[in-house]
Amino acid sequence: MGKSNLELVKECDRFPYYQDDPAFYTAHLENYHVFKVSGCDAVLGYILNGVVEKFPWPAEFWAVDTTTRTVTLVTGADATPAQRSRLIAQTLAAAVEQGTFEILRGWRDELYPIYGPGGEFLLEMERSATPLFGVVSYGIHATCYVQDDQGLRIWVPRRSRTKQTYPGMLDNSVAGGMSSHERPFECLVREASEEASLPEAVTRASARAAGCVTYFYVRSSKAGGETDLLQPEVEYIYDVRVAADVVLQPGDSEVEQFHLLSVDETQAALARGEFKPNCAVVLIDFFIRHGILTAENELDFLEILARIHRRLEFPTASHATN
Amino acid sequence: MGKSNLELVKECDRFPYYQDDPAFYTAHLENYHVFKVSGCDAVLGYILNGVVEKFPWPAEFWAVDTTTRTVTLVTGADATPAQRSRLIAQTLAAAVEQGTFEILRGWRDELYPIYGPGGEFLLEMERSATPLFGVVSYGIHATCYVQDDQGLRIWVPRRSRTKQTYPGMLDNSVAGGMSSHERPFECLVREASEEASLPEAVTRASARAAGCVTYFYVRSSKAGGETDLLQPEVEYIYDVRVAADVVLQPGDSEVEQFHLLSVDETQAALARGEFKPNCAVVLIDFFIRHGILTAENELDFLEILARIHRRLEFPTASHATN
Repeated sequence: MGKSNLELVKECDRFPYYQDDPAFYTAHLENYHVFKVSGCDAVLGYILNGVVEKFPWPAEFWAVDTTTRTVTLVTGADATPAQRSRLIAQTLAAAVEQGTFEILRGWRDELYPIYGPGGEFLLEMERSATPLFGVVSYGIHATCYVQDDQGLRIWVPRRSRTKQTYPGMLDNSVAGGMSSHERPFECLVREASEEASLPEAVTRASARAAGCVTYFYVRSSKAGGETDLLQPEVEYIYDVRVAADVVLQPGDSEVEQFHLLSVDETQAALARGEFKPNCAVVLIDFFIRHGILTAENELDFLEILARIHRRLEFPTASHATN
Repeated sequence: MGKSNLELVKECDRFPYYQDDPAFYTAHLENYHVFKVSGCDAVLGYILNGVVEKFPWPAEFWAVDTTTRTVTLVTGADATPAQRSRLIAQTLAAAVEQGTFEILRGWRDELYPIYGPGGEFLLEMERSATPLFGVVSYGIHATCYVQDDQGLRIWVPRRSRTKQTYPGMLDNSVAGGMSSHERPFECLVREASEEASLPEAVTRASARAAGCVTYFYVRSSKAGGETDLLQPEVEYIYDVRVAADVVLQPGDSEVEQFHLLSVDETQAALARGEFKPNCAVVLIDFFIRHGILTAENELDFLEILARIHRRLEFPTASHATN
């Protein structure tokens, strides 16, 4: 008996819900400080108390209040995103130098954006540091599939066994994080080319936006680095239907090999826990949208749909151009 | 300047969220009593205080506690769903006789099910009474569409101008409530035949399950009956792609006429507020799943997706057969 789809969802959407147990939720929040920037009321993320204690916070521009459990980046009222980002970078550089956090040894040299309550860009920070601050991160996940008289088959890559995070696990056909100033569709086109050798023209012609999944992940040991760090995420979802003669191939060292799996084979691998947690969620969403998982064959249909579209308690981005 | 898609979603998903303002949410709950049945800890719905005061609660089997704001249907520990349902029916019959509630003048003579925390069937009650108890109700909504070289067009019915609820508004191609013991797909087949004259064979061959939308509706005057009653809802979603020569026609008096609208025409009618609120939500979900509304062209993409998949704070059904 393998893992149920709801069990897979719960491995990804792990942060408690207020409604399930208000007293527990309120007590649980005491494990965290809230992360704010001056001039903005919104809570941007939750920082584990243990992280707050270890962080070398330069007192010139950080205010740590252990009574209200608030960590504030203090700047003038007219600070720009570039100014805030420089102060964050300076703080992180000191932490790296002192070797404070294991997770920062996976430095990516990619900047991730953080937004305010009106969707305004507030600052950017090194990707590997975002779970220390518990801020929302953004990415794209695409399911490339073939649908013909042999039925529906899905292109599934296995992650390189030497990758820092989730080594050797199965992944979505194309997936990647969105750096600052990147837009979802352009991120998809870039990642599809880099990771799956999918020509830009094929992606542009065949990819269809299909919503997003959102969840509140709590990092396990498989994620690498400190455990229990928070990672609320938004993944924009694409379906890419390709012809049977299109073959996905690793374009960089991140993927070991691609396999074309039937729905049954994919579901069996899911039940065995072979997929990276958020990739399992994306496949479950795909199966729901394609009428493979239904109210009649999935016991936990409603709970699954609500949890993979979680309304995060932090401000989120708008990537609209209009 | 018409209504934005988020404004349309908010007309349907109107109940406040704890996360937006914990103090306001907590204060808001004081407007309601919780509805319970003895032997089950779960809150099954919220009853407006004004409704609690007016309801003729027979003291033999109702306990109304104004301190904890709880209304409990009191039975022996081994009560069956049939026994609970009889007591509810008796209570409602008295309310109808005394003319206590305007909403019960729209008596439908259809029984709606209420489930416990393990998905177990607890009781059923007359459809028109469910908003008095604020319990979750279930339905199916289908979008019938044509997709060919003329583009995507959607079959949109206008509700009869003499209908009690939302007269003259635009609706989804097929929509209907699920009575007790009904399953989503069979409900779809029945409603498609009754309301849209779609032959059973066409529905069975062409309908594809595509998830569900959930939201927490607060009834307005257009819904008929008392305002501010609560109606948390689950709508199972189907896409039905039909050939261009299939013509949907009213099968009963509930629909005035069907129109085949382009995406632009449908979106214009949405912006004019012509659609029944939950039908607008179903179309927005359709547009997201079909890549028409995307992260790049919809400012409120993330908030919309989370709100139309709201995790309800009451137990919900499982309609799975396995």
